[in-house]
Amino acid sequence: MESMSEPIDANHEASIRQGFASHGLMQTLHATLESVEAGRAVIRLPFSEHITQHHGYVHAGAITAIVDTACGCAAMTLSTASLGLLTVEYKVNFLAPARGKEFVATGQVVKAGKTLTICQGTVEDDSGVQVALMQATMMVLKG
Amino acid sequence: MESMSEPIDANHEASIRQGFASHGLMQTLHATLESVEAGRAVIRLPFSEHITQHHGYVHAGAITAIVDTACGCAAMTLSTASLGLLTVEYKVNFLAPARGKEFVATGQVVKAGKTLTICQGTVEDDSGVQVALMQATMMVLKG
Amino acid sequence: MESMSEPIDANHEASIRQGFASHGLMQTLHATLESVEAGRAVIRLPFSEHITQHHGYVHAGAITAIVDTACGCAAMTLSTASLGLLTVEYKVNFLAPARGKEFVATGQVVKAGKTLTICQGTVEDDSGVQVALMQATMMVLKG
Amino acid sequence: MESMSEPIDANHEASIRQGFASHGLMQTLHATLESVEAGRAVIRLPFSEHITQHHGYVHAGAITAIVDTACGCAAMTLSTASLGLLTVEYKVNFLAPARGKEFVATGQVVKAGKTLTICQGTVEDDSGVQVALMQATMMVLKG
Repeated sequence: MESMSEPIDANHEASIRQGFASHGLMQTLHATLESVEAGRAVIRLPFSEHITQHHGYVHAGAITAIVDTACGCAAMTLSTASLGLLTVEYKVNFLAPARGKEFVATGQVVKAGKTLTICQGTVEDDSGVQVALMQATMMVLKG
Repeated sequence: MESMSEPIDANHEASIRQGFASHGLMQTLHATLESVEAGRAVIRLPFSEHITQHHGYVHAGAITAIVDTACGCAAMTLSTASLGLLTVEYKVNFLAPARGKEFVATGQVVKAGKTLTICQGTVEDDSGVQVALMQATMMVLKG
Repeated sequence: MESMSEPIDANHEASIRQGFASHGLMQTLHATLESVEAGRAVIRLPFSEHITQHHGYVHAGAITAIVDTACGCAAMTLSTASLGLLTVEYKVNFLAPARGKEFVATGQVVKAGKTLTICQGTVEDDSGVQVALMQATMMVLKG
Repeated sequence: MESMSEPIDANHEASIRQGFASHGLMQTLHATLESVEAGRAVIRLPFSEHITQHHGYVHAGAITAIVDTACGCAAMTLSTASLGLLTVEYKVNFLAPARGKEFVATGQVVKAGKTLTICQGTVEDDSGVQVALMQATMMVLKG
């Protein structure tokens, strides 16, 4: 999952950032959208007790939420005419307990098709330990 | 996914409910654990703006969090000696936008193995529309 | 996953059976299409050494092939105008080693959407032991 | 999914190759094990009509079988004391129709845990088009 590292149009990035800002859940989790490039997006999530599970680590649902959103933003970068985005489905493996002070979710487009966009996502903690791996199918809604 | 409808030992249920109450994320989402039976658990989630995505529906991550937790609680019901539970992985299909006033997640054990427990989960809105379908692999940690 | 048990139009069933007969792989595996109803299809696979893995059980790939095809046929039953079918993705859990004399794969539509059809599938051996559980996304191609 | 490119012990490789040769299904599909390195294995599959689906492309089940086996062999490379391997579950996205003269499946270990090994797999056709993407959970059986 190497970065394509291509910037996107400033208006398009502003529109994706506005979409992200309107996610109630991202605000509730205290997640922030770090970067948006062509086919790739990065979201940060600080550790906090209000997003834990019973062992005191970050809940799988919160980890999933940020990597799903990173994949969704990544998919949006490749379609300027999109009216919205639906997550069709995803699968996540949890590779290590989500302990650490901060988590970084990266979503990357593997294939942008006419109807469906396939993404891979990863979440790492602040020591570089990979805590989750996602494979997702997104549907970009077109006008 | 029919209910097995067998009650479990009261101490065991109390311990699972205590575990649920210690999930910071479940409190943050305002999710409640409705019922715990042998091989099955049900969680309720009221709609609220603080858990939405950009279209104003409930975020896939919040839907995933409740059905993951329902599957986890269901897996716990079948193991009195468990010390904890890890979600190994899951896959979720989103069948309809999560609009509605309330959502009910049901987790059901399909097979409880020596090391791994396989579960199915569903989420319905308050009109009975199925919004998500999960297939999950859990690892029950034993003493 | 209860059967809807509704027969479909005889011409439509003939067309699905013709499609099945044209799968080189189904012939190679010696799989047969047992039944086709509205939203549901059943495929049988006899045990044979030419489809095994290294422990002598039926290979996960052969089990997957029949339950994928059962889900695909099930999806086709709900669309008379379809020009074909693509498997978008699937996830399979293997619940028990595939030993036994015969295997029965059942594919069932969970939701038939405008673009995508979501199916669940199961495979049982001839003792009724569930060996696999699938959740699949199909795309029915329309004219 | 970069190659770790480390050779493994010759006896260990011979044992994995012997295991592969005992898969009835791999012989039936005419698949060959091209390379086995630390954490990585590559399998080749020539196109043939006996492994097709109804559109004449290679059946998703055959594509899945080779990438599952590549992931399994990759997992085996990291455990010299293993007595066998079980596929716990996998998820596959199909990115393009499997047309072409030959297909190359690569399985790569993402994390080798005490009980479970997580792998990613890809299948490319002979033009370099990616036709499938797998995320799999394997259980290496230890003595």
